[in-house]
Parts: sequence; C-alpha cells; structure tokens
Amino acid sequence: MTQVRFGIIGIGNMGSAHATSITGGQVPELQLVAVADRRASRRQWAAETLPADVTVFSEGKELIASGLVDAVLIAVPHYQHPELAEDAFAHGLHVLSEKPAGVYTKQVREENAAAAKSGLTFAMMFNQRTNSVYRKMHDIVQGGEFGAIMRVNWIITDWFRTQAYYDSGDWRGTWNGEGGGVLLNQCPHQLDLLQWICGMPSEIQAFAQNGHWHDIEVEDDVTAYLKYPNGATGVFVTSTGDYPGTNRFEVTMERGKIVCDGGRLTLFRLDENIRDVCQHSEQAFARPVVHAELVETDGSNPQHVGILRNFGQHLLTGAPLIARGEEGINGLTVSNMIHLSSWLGRPVTAPIDEDLFLAELNERRAASHAKKAGSDVAIDLTDTY
Amino acid sequence: MTQVRFGIIGIGNMGSAHATSITGGQVPELQLVAVADRRASRRQWAAETLPADVTVFSEGKELIASGLVDAVLIAVPHYQHPELAEDAFAHGLHVLSEKPAGVYTKQVREENAAAAKSGLTFAMMFNQRTNSVYRKMHDIVQGGEFGAIMRVNWIITDWFRTQAYYDSGDWRGTWNGEGGGVLLNQCPHQLDLLQWICGMPSEIQAFAQNGHWHDIEVEDDVTAYLKYPNGATGVFVTSTGDYPGTNRFEVTMERGKIVCDGGRLTLFRLDENIRDVCQHSEQAFARPVVHAELVETDGSNPQHVGILRNFGQHLLTGAPLIARGEEGINGLTVSNMIHLSSWLGRPVTAPIDEDLFLAELNERRAASHAKKAGSDVAIDLTDTY
Repeated sequence: MTQVRFGIIGIGNMGSAHATSITGGQVPELQLVAVADRRASRRQWAAETLPADVTVFSEGKELIASGLVDAVLIAVPHYQHPELAEDAFAHGLHVLSEKPAGVYTKQVREENAAAAKSGLTFAMMFNQRTNSVYRKMHDIVQGGEFGAIMRVNWIITDWFRTQAYYDSGDWRGTWNGEGGGVLLNQCPHQLDLLQWICGMPSEIQAFAQNGHWHDIEVEDDVTAYLKYPNGATGVFVTSTGDYPGTNRFEVTMERGKIVCDGGRLTLFRLDENIRDVCQHSEQAFARPVVHAELVETDGSNPQHVGILRNFGQHLLTGAPLIARGEEGINGLTVSNMIHLSSWLGRPVTAPIDEDLFLAELNERRAASHAKKAGSDVAIDLTDTY
Repeated sequence: MTQVRFGIIGIGNMGSAHATSITGGQVPELQLVAVADRRASRRQWAAETLPADVTVFSEGKELIASGLVDAVLIAVPHYQHPELAEDAFAHGLHVLSEKPAGVYTKQVREENAAAAKSGLTFAMMFNQRTNSVYRKMHDIVQGGEFGAIMRVNWIITDWFRTQAYYDSGDWRGTWNGEGGGVLLNQCPHQLDLLQWICGMPSEIQAFAQNGHWHDIEVEDDVTAYLKYPNGATGVFVTSTGDYPGTNRFEVTMERGKIVCDGGRLTLFRLDENIRDVCQHSEQAFARPVVHAELVETDGSNPQHVGILRNFGQHLLTGAPLIARGEEGINGLTVSNMIHLSSWLGRPVTAPIDEDLFLAELNERRAASHAKKAGSDVAIDLTDTY
C-alpha cells in the first residue's frame, strides 16, 4: 500500500479544509476517495470543488459501509464523534477524530474500548502538538532535567467571539448542540496540551460562568484551580469575552521555570534544586543564580497537515502517532471535571463520577434551546486551528 | 512648625532603616527625637548609632506618654499595631503605621474609629504606592478612559524564602506570632495595590496551603479567585516557595488591557468598547485594531522615604496623604477573606463575618507554637519593602 484510501465525514469548515489539503497534494500519504455531509449545500460544494473521482455521500455511515476507504476522518459535531468512530471500527476502518474526542468521558471510554478491541489505528487531530513551541515545552517539562512541577499557570483568553458568532448557528453555545462553550469548542487543544505537558490533575475546583459575556446557555468565562498528585497547583483561565486576550503558559519546576508568552519561550534555569535550597540553605534570603534564555525551537509547525501526514505514515510505515486516540479522553476529563465542579460548587477529584457528570449534562440538554444535536445546521463552520 | 517631632516605636529591620533615613537628612520634614524597643540589643544599637539627642525608651507606651513627640511611626509586630496606634491617638499624637494595619479587620475597624474620633492624622506605610509603575496603573485603571474592569490576574510569586528564614525567629510563620504567612508578611503591599487599582472584591474563594513548602504553621502558597461587584473576576497567586518567581499583574478592561510584567508596563488600547463590539458586530470573528505601547512613567519611586516625607508634608502644609490610615483595612479585608475562605472551604462574601474570622484565627492561635505575640524576640528583622 503506498497511499491510504481516505474518507472525510463532515465537510464543514474544518473537513473541507482537510479535503483540499489532501487533493491539493499536501498529504501524499492519503488519497481522498470519499466525503460525506448531511447538507445538500456542502455536497454541492464537494461536487463542484473536489476531483470527480471523490464519491460524495449524504450520511457518514454510508461512507463507512461503502468499502471505498481504509480510514476516515470524523469532523462532525462533537456529540457524534464517538458514535461514528465506533461504527468505523466495526467496519474495520482506522479513525482520525477531530477534537474533542466526545462531549463526556463515559462516551469516549466506550469509544476507546471499541478502538482497543478492533486493533485498528485511532488518532486525534491534536494539531497543536505539532507546534515546535509546545513540543519544546513538553520536552523540557517531561524530560526530567528540571525536576518536579511546582506550579502551572495558563491564561488563555485570546478566544474573543462576538454574539454574531454564537448566533451563526442555533446549535452554537448550547448544551444540546455543543455540550459546552469555550471548554468544548475553543479549548480542547489547550486542555490536551496542558495534560500532555504537565500531566493529569487529581482535583479541580472551577468557576465556569454561563452566558457571562454573551447571550448563550453555556460557559464563556472559566477559571479553574488545579491540584496535581505531587502537590503542585495550577490555574487555567479562559474566556471568549476578553479582547485583546492573553496566551501565557508558565510552568514552575524545581530547577527552573518555562514561560510561553505570545509564542515566545523563555527558560529560567537553576544550577540547584530549589527545594534543596529552601530546606538546607543557611541564608534567609537566598537568591540562587538564574540563567535566563530565549529557547530556540526547530520552528516546525505543520499543524493539521502534519497530523494528516503522521496518520498516513503511521498506517503505511508504522511511524509513531503524534496523538493517539486513546489520549483524547485526558483533556476531556479535565474539561468535564471543570464543568462538574462548577455545576456542583465544590471540588471534584479524579476519577470523575462519569454517571453524575452525564446526569448533570443531560439535565442541561433537556432544558437546552438548541435543535436536536446532529440536525442539518449542526456542522456549519466548525472553527478550530 | 517647620519640623514634626517624630518618634519610632520598634527599631528592628524596618524601624532602624527609617530612623537612619531621617537622621541622615533624607526626610527634612521630620526630626527624630525618640525611639523605643523592648530589646536591649536594639536600644544599644540606637545609643551607638543615632544622634545623642534622640531619647531611647524600652516601651512604646513610654515614648507615647513622654510628651517629646508630635507623631509616631509604629514598626512593631503586626498584632500590636492597632493597640499602639490607639494609645498614640489617645495622647494626641499623629500616627504612621507599618503594614499591615493589623491582623484582623475587627481590630483595625476599632483603630480606624479611634483615629476618626481623635481628628488626628493616620497614615499607612504603603510605600509601593509611590512606585511610578503602580501609580500609572492606578491612574489608567481608575481614570475611566478604559471603561469597566473585566478581568484581573496577579501572579506574585517572587517572594522566595528559605526554611532558615522562618527559623530565624520563633514567632515567624506562626499564627500567634504573625497571624498568617505570605498574606500577612509579604503581600500586604500587593493586596493594598490590588484594591487601590482594581477596587474591592465582593466575593472570594481561596486555596491557602499551610506549610506547603516549609515547616511552618501558616500559609506559604495561595491561590485566590476574586469576584467583583460588576461581575469581573480575578486571580491572585502568591507563594514563598517558588524561585525564580513571577510578578505579573494584568488588568483587562472594556477598552484596553494593561500588563505590568517585571516592572515593565504595556498598554493595549482599543478604539472601541469591546462590549459593544461583542454585542453589535456583524462579524463572528471580529478583531478590532489594538494599539500596543510601552507606557512611560515619571520614573519616580521614593518608597519609604517618599511616605515619610509625605506624612511630614501633610502635617506641616496639608499635602494630601499618599495612603490614608483608614485605607489599611481594605487590603487586610482581602487577606482575611482569603484566609477565611480557605479555612472554611467555601466562598466568602463581603462584608466578611469579622467575629467568625476572629474565632477561627483564635483557634489557630491557641494551638500555635509561637511564643506569646510581643515577646522579646518578636520584632527582630521585619523584612518588607
């Protein structure tokens, strides 16, 4: 096999971008042979835009059952990700899923089990993991040279959205349409990077405010306090109401501190472990030498195309996946813990009570003003990057 | 009157620095005529170091009753600030108090009432208000040009202290000796600036960890989530365990954002009110123009000498005070709310239940290992700036 026969389910904003990346020759590992979308307008776009030998389906399940493809990319509304992935596994297809893996971890846990049972490849479109800056942070924090994490602080408030944005689809900003707000739509990448770089928190107390800046059902302003198993703590702040926002991610470790601010990476390196200095120094006001440096990276940031190529290379040559599908549950777990803590007004410890979360979510879905998830409008303009 | 006859009660680290500033000619408005300290070693230092016409007392109350001075500076351990201030007012003396105003707001409320009743001048040594950077932030945020505050984030973790620091006095890091940890000793300035620049929060949920980085009774790691009366939220993070720490203070407003990072002030200015853009723009992904600029200040930062001179000028010529004594209760209220929320594990709303706070504090004092507050060792090496 020199190319993977590839299908894309959902050709809204993201799915269509992936399709044209492939047909435009940027992803030689994949051959686009089929797409699917419930909306006639998107199928018309496909017929007019994509090569004539790309088959167009109206239902993802038809594409999956067609026998035309070896693998699918799922780029439909959040709630449908696990269902379609499981259907694909049942038909012997490999799966690349857009983020988030799903809306609630119980659903994604079943998806992961189906993937494991199938023995097929399951990957996540966590394209931010291809960013050289975050890869470098991951290597620095997880590499061990700087010791244990002591504190994490990520202010990621550069997600400004207008009311017009939320009004652009009646599923937007609703419990039934999206399953959440800034946590589910904008932040899945950051929540994945947070756990990829810093590990999973063991307890969260969060303050998610619904409709704080917009007329929407779901949260558009979130502050979360995180506790880690080793005693470290962290803060994660996000919003779609701030402008100009901030993207500043800081990790303090025993032998140094790394700060990513506006894409610039600064490392503060210590010669000693500060915990040793704290405990054993005879000086009350010890000020060990700090070596500050701008960190150079390899500069590579192939984003979505990088994930698509990696997925193809994995299938063709066994190259390691950048983001295994089974890891999608981690960032979603953080997201679900933030929601549940905010809803209950108390700390939530790991493992999250998945049944309680789902019951609370379903209460909100029952009262939701959105059309039924998966309705025709539900896959227009999925914005991500 | 061309000079104020001035006494200093407590000539530990800070009090002695103030004394030599005055006798060295840096504060022409004040004439140092008396000092007091319970420790023979400090009185010996005074006899050897200060001019011969400076009278040395062993008790602050003797100095107050001596008739030698018009005004006093109180630089003794925290718990004693209000008691000595009230005694000074009762003797017709003006008072400049070191920070914090006291340990609990109930005590400081009585002190404020005594000050008001006396008609005498009461001022706080909030020397950080003389820093041109914070004055500029105050003017920008309170000036009104940038509209309402939407978000506040202050990471102030550059307070690294070793175990040796806490071991240097057996009152240090104890409920009975200091009444708290990083909030009472290191952060009174920041908590004052926070309320001076951003106003008072109406609700706080906080996470103060006792002895997290050190073998001490009190908190050395704090994260607080703040809610403001207008719906804005904020985060305040501090610690004496991080190194190198961070000092980054960000205020997001409707028409701009101001960031103070490492003493550098950057202003992001909008032409429009972002709340209007959010509500009325027809663009889903509106990105209004942002004008970023480094903010110049007048560069003046006279610190303690600035406060001493201002206090003298106020008494001699009626110049407005930089920090009125009555304002000392504000930062302490934030501090007390952070403590109480952490102790109770729930949000605390304003006005704080002062009796509940005091009862909770007294429980901790009763179990404290510190010597009785005000004991001989209790005023060694008060570090502040």
